[in-house]
Amino acid sequence: MERVGFIGLGKMGYRMASNIIKKFPLIVWNRTIERAAELSAKGATVASSPSELAKQSTVIITMLATPTATADVILGREQYKGRGVLDGVSDGKIIIDMSTNSPLIVRMIASHLIGKGCYLIDAPVMGSIQAAEEAALTILASGEFSAFEKIKPILETMGKKVWYLGELGKASSLKLIFNLHLFLLTAAFSEAFALAIRSKLDPKTVLEIWNSSNQKTYISETKGPRILADDWTATFTVGLALKDLQILAEMVEELEFPLILGSVVRELYKACSSLDLKEMDFAAIYKLYEYLSKARKL
Amino acid sequence: MERVGFIGLGKMGYRMASNIIKKFPLIVWNRTIERAAELSAKGATVASSPSELAKQSTVIITMLATPTATADVILGREQYKGRGVLDGVSDGKIIIDMSTNSPLIVRMIASHLIGKGCYLIDAPVMGSIQAAEEAALTILASGEFSAFEKIKPILETMGKKVWYLGELGKASSLKLIFNLHLFLLTAAFSEAFALAIRSKLDPKTVLEIWNSSNQKTYISETKGPRILADDWTATFTVGLALKDLQILAEMVEELEFPLILGSVVRELYKACSSLDLKEMDFAAIYKLYEYLSKARKL
Amino acid sequence: MERVGFIGLGKMGYRMASNIIKKFPLIVWNRTIERAAELSAKGATVASSPSELAKQSTVIITMLATPTATADVILGREQYKGRGVLDGVSDGKIIIDMSTNSPLIVRMIASHLIGKGCYLIDAPVMGSIQAAEEAALTILASGEFSAFEKIKPILETMGKKVWYLGELGKASSLKLIFNLHLFLLTAAFSEAFALAIRSKLDPKTVLEIWNSSNQKTYISETKGPRILADDWTATFTVGLALKDLQILAEMVEELEFPLILGSVVRELYKACSSLDLKEMDFAAIYKLYEYLSKARKL
Amino acid sequence: MERVGFIGLGKMGYRMASNIIKKFPLIVWNRTIERAAELSAKGATVASSPSELAKQSTVIITMLATPTATADVILGREQYKGRGVLDGVSDGKIIIDMSTNSPLIVRMIASHLIGKGCYLIDAPVMGSIQAAEEAALTILASGEFSAFEKIKPILETMGKKVWYLGELGKASSLKLIFNLHLFLLTAAFSEAFALAIRSKLDPKTVLEIWNSSNQKTYISETKGPRILADDWTATFTVGLALKDLQILAEMVEELEFPLILGSVVRELYKACSSLDLKEMDFAAIYKLYEYLSKARKL
Repeated sequence: MERVGFIGLGKMGYRMASNIIKKFPLIVWNRTIERAAELSAKGATVASSPSELAKQSTVIITMLATPTATADVILGREQYKGRGVLDGVSDGKIIIDMSTNSPLIVRMIASHLIGKGCYLIDAPVMGSIQAAEEAALTILASGEFSAFEKIKPILETMGKKVWYLGELGKASSLKLIFNLHLFLLTAAFSEAFALAIRSKLDPKTVLEIWNSSNQKTYISETKGPRILADDWTATFTVGLALKDLQILAEMVEELEFPLILGSVVRELYKACSSLDLKEMDFAAIYKLYEYLSKARKL
Repeated sequence: MERVGFIGLGKMGYRMASNIIKKFPLIVWNRTIERAAELSAKGATVASSPSELAKQSTVIITMLATPTATADVILGREQYKGRGVLDGVSDGKIIIDMSTNSPLIVRMIASHLIGKGCYLIDAPVMGSIQAAEEAALTILASGEFSAFEKIKPILETMGKKVWYLGELGKASSLKLIFNLHLFLLTAAFSEAFALAIRSKLDPKTVLEIWNSSNQKTYISETKGPRILADDWTATFTVGLALKDLQILAEMVEELEFPLILGSVVRELYKACSSLDLKEMDFAAIYKLYEYLSKARKL
Repeated sequence: MERVGFIGLGKMGYRMASNIIKKFPLIVWNRTIERAAELSAKGATVASSPSELAKQSTVIITMLATPTATADVILGREQYKGRGVLDGVSDGKIIIDMSTNSPLIVRMIASHLIGKGCYLIDAPVMGSIQAAEEAALTILASGEFSAFEKIKPILETMGKKVWYLGELGKASSLKLIFNLHLFLLTAAFSEAFALAIRSKLDPKTVLEIWNSSNQKTYISETKGPRILADDWTATFTVGLALKDLQILAEMVEELEFPLILGSVVRELYKACSSLDLKEMDFAAIYKLYEYLSKARKL
Repeated sequence: MERVGFIGLGKMGYRMASNIIKKFPLIVWNRTIERAAELSAKGATVASSPSELAKQSTVIITMLATPTATADVILGREQYKGRGVLDGVSDGKIIIDMSTNSPLIVRMIASHLIGKGCYLIDAPVMGSIQAAEEAALTILASGEFSAFEKIKPILETMGKKVWYLGELGKASSLKLIFNLHLFLLTAAFSEAFALAIRSKLDPKTVLEIWNSSNQKTYISETKGPRILADDWTATFTVGLALKDLQILAEMVEELEFPLILGSVVRELYKACSSLDLKEMDFAAIYKLYEYLSKARKL
C-alpha cells in the first residue's frame, strides 16, 4: 500500500490531507507546525523536513501557494537547500503537484526528477473549501499514464471526479484557462450589472431575473448576492487573481496567443489593486465599474 | 375581452401569436401575406394595414426586426405613411412593443402616443424559438403600471414568467444588457476555449469538463458542441449581434458608462464581419480567435 | 466678386470671418448678436436670419458646434423653420460647411440641396485659435470640383494650405480620423508618461528627453508642459472629445471597421467624464491614469 | 586613461565600439569572431573570453540582444561558466550595460557585483544604426553617480547627448517606456491610417497632409512611406517588439500599473506573429488592421 506524504496544509491542503488519511498512511510536513500537529492527532506522522517526508513516503503530494514555493520545496532551493523533496526521493517514487502551477514550471521541475528515476504528475483541483472538505473536488491530472494509474486511487479519496488530460503540464494549463474564464465571467457580470444599476433598474429584481434565466453563471449565482450585500470578504482575493493572471501570461507568451479580453481584465484588476481593493474578493472588480460610472464613490 | 392585434409574424412572432389565439381573438398583419394566411387558418382575422389592425384591436403588439421598422409601423412613417398604427388607434388602446428595441426609441414613440390617449408598454422577450413555441418565454415589461396590469394576461399566454420593471424603457434597457452579457460570455468562452485548443488539449474532453463544472454557461452548453462540430448555422447572426451592440452603444452614450469589455467585443465582431462571418451564428467569434492564434486558417 | 455669408462666430469662426472680410464683402449671422456686431464694426453686414444671409450671399459658410446644429441651420429645422439657409438660397449658390461634421450628415444635407441647384463643399479646418487668427489654418476640402475651384480663393483667406480630397464627405472623414489620431496620441502619451512617474523617474527630466528625441509628438509638446504644471484649462474639453468620438463611431459603424484602440480610448474618456473631468482639457485622460496607478488621488 | 572592453559587436555595438576606439584603448569580445577581427584591424585587442576581456579592461561595456544573454555573459552562467565578466573583474572596475534590459535584471546583476567591489551602470541608447555610426545616439544612464561621472567621457564618444537619471535601473525603465510609446504610436498611426484607406481616401495625399501637419510623428514620417510602398523590411522586427513588451510587462507587473493600451497592442502584436508577420518590421501591425477591415487580404 502507498504511503502518502503531504506538503502544504493550508485551507485546501488540510482538508484534502484529512480525506487521504481515511484510506492511506499519511506523512505530513508544513512550514508552520500547528496544522501538522492537528493531523498528527488523526494518525499522521509529522516529518521534520520535505526530504525526510520524501524518504518515508512512496507518493509525495505538494499543495502550495505559488509556483516558486513549489519549485523551492521540491528542488531544495533557497531555504530548503539540502532539505528538499528531491534530496529524499529514490527510484520509482511519484510526486503529485496539486497546486495551481505554471505548465512551464511543472516541466522544469520534472526535468530535474528524470535523473532520480521519479515521476511527476500535475493534478490541480477545482472546487471550494467545502468541496475539499466533502471530498467532492474535481481533479485535473496529467503526466506519465502508468504513474497516473498508480496514484489515481489516492486522488479519488479527495475528489468525486478525476480527469486524465495527457502529457505533463496539460492539467496545469487547463486549470489556468478555467481560472481565466472565471475572471472573464466576473468582469462580464460586473460590467453588465453595473450598467443595469446605472440605468436605474432595481438591483434585487435584476439579479433575481439573472439567476432564473439563461444569463445565470457560477459568478452571478455566488458573487451576485454578495455584491448586492456590499460584502467583499474574500474567498479568493484580487491579489490572487492577479497572481494567476501573471502565471497565465507567461504560459500564453510562449504560445503567442492573442489574449485580448484576458489582458484587458488583467489591467482592470491592476487598477483595482491601485485602488486598495487588493485584499478584497476578486468580485470587487464590480466596485471599479461602479466607481468609473458615477454609480457610487469608492 | 381584449381583441389583440399582432404585427410582425417572423420566426418568433408567428409562434407567439399562435399562443395568443388560444385565449384571445386575434387580428394579424404582416409585411408579407403568407404567414398571416397561416394564422387565418387558425381563426385570426387578417388586417389590410397596421392602421386597420389598430382600429379592430384593443391591444396592439409589435414584434419587428429593427427599432426603425418598429417606429415606422407605429408612427406611420415612410412606406406606412397614413397607414401606421397611430393612424388607427383611439383613446385607451394599449400598444405593446415586444421587439428588442432601444429605450430611446421606445420613449420617442411614446411621446407621439400621448396626444392620442394611448399607452405604450415595452415588453421584450428572452428565450429561443422553442420557448416561443412552448409559451415558455421570459418576458420583461415596463411602462404605466395600470396598463401593464390590463395586458398582463395576454403576455402570460406567451411566457411562463412575466417581470414588471417600472417606467417605460427599462425593460428594453435590461434586454439589451442581457444580450450584452451573452455576447461577453460568448467571447469569454471563445477566448478561453481557443487557448485550450492552442495548448493542444483535447477539445472533446475539455468541453465535457467545462459543462460538468462551475465553468458551465448557457453559451458553453449550447454553442460549445456546435463549435466542436464546426457548425455555424445561425440561430442569431453576427450581423444581428452587431445591430444589438449598436443600439446598446447609443443607450450607453447617454449614460456615459465605460463599456470597456463590450466595446472591445463589438470591435471583434466588426472584424468577424470583415472576415465574411456576418451571416454565421454569433458564436463564430470563436473562428476569429482560432484564426488569430494559428490554430486553424479560416 | 463673391459675397460671403458666414454663420457661426465662435472662437474659431470669428477669427476666420475676420480674415475673409479683408478680401471679400461679408454678411454675418450668429445666434447671439454681440459677435456679429463686432464684425459689423469691421464692415460686415449683419443678416437677420440664416435665410436672409443666404439671399444676400453667393457663398455661405457654416462653422457650428455640432452636426445637428449645422443641419438645423442649413435645412431650416427646429427653431430655424422657415428661416434656414435652404429657405434663402437659389440656383448656383455654394454652401461651405467648415465645422467638424459627420460625412453621413454632410451627405444627408447635400441631398436636400440638389433640388435647389446648389452645391455643398465640406471644408473642416485643422489648427489652433492662433492659427485661425493668423490665417494659417490647414483646410481639408471635398465636394464637386468645379464648386471647390470657385470658392478656393475664399478658403485661402483663412488658411495657408488648402487640400482637395475628392467627393463630398471625404474631408469630414479625414478630419475625424485626424482627431481620432490626436486622442490616441494623447492616451499613448498619458499611459507612457504616467508609467514613467510611477517608476519614480523625474517628471521634468523625462519630459525634456521626450521632446528632444524621436518620441516627440504634438501632444507631448503642447500638453506635456501643462500636465507637469497641473494645468487643465481646456483648449478642447473631454466632453468635446467624446462628441467627436461619437460622430466617428457612427461613421465607422457603416464601414464595419474594427476601431480597437479608438474604442478603448473612448471608454476611458467616458470614465473621465464620470470622474468629473468633462469640462477639463482632453489631456485630462492623464489624470485617469494617475488615479488608477496610485500615483496621485484625483 | 581607461581601457574599455566591449562585448557584443552587432549592428549597433560594432558602430559604437568603432567610435570608442577613436578616443580610448579598446579590447573586444564577440560570440562570433569575424566582427572582432574587423575591429582588430582598427587597433582593438581581441580577448579570448569575457573574463579575459574583463581582466584587461578598466571599464566593460555590454551590448547584447536579450536580458538573459547579458546576465549569462556578465555572471558567467550557462556556456560562460567560469568565463564570465564576473570571473575577470576586480575591485573598482565599472560595467556599463548598454543593451535594452529589464530594470529587474539590471538590479539582479548588480547584486552579484557588490561583493566584487564593482559598479554597474545601465545606459541604454536611443537612435538608429545611422545615429550609432555618426556618434549621435541619445544615451540614458543611471547608477552610482561617482561611477557615472567616471565613464561619462566614454559614453560621450558614442552619443551627442547623455542623460543621467538617478539610481540603477531607471535608465532601463525609461528606455522600455519609450519603446512602449513608439509601439503605441505605431498602432495609433496604423488604426487611423487604415481607417482613412477604408474610407476610400487617397493614401498618398493623406500621408502628405499627415506629415505636414500637427499629426506628424516619428512613426508617420519613417514608417508611413514604407507602408505606402508595401515595404516590410525590418529595422526592428515584430518579434523584437514582442520581446520588449514582454520585458516591460514584467516591470509593470511589479508596479501594478494598469497598462491598458500597451496590453491591447501587445495582444495585437501576438496576432501579427500568428499571421506570420513575425520577421517583418514592427510597422506590420498595419497589415493586421488592413486585413481585419476588408481593405486587403494578407
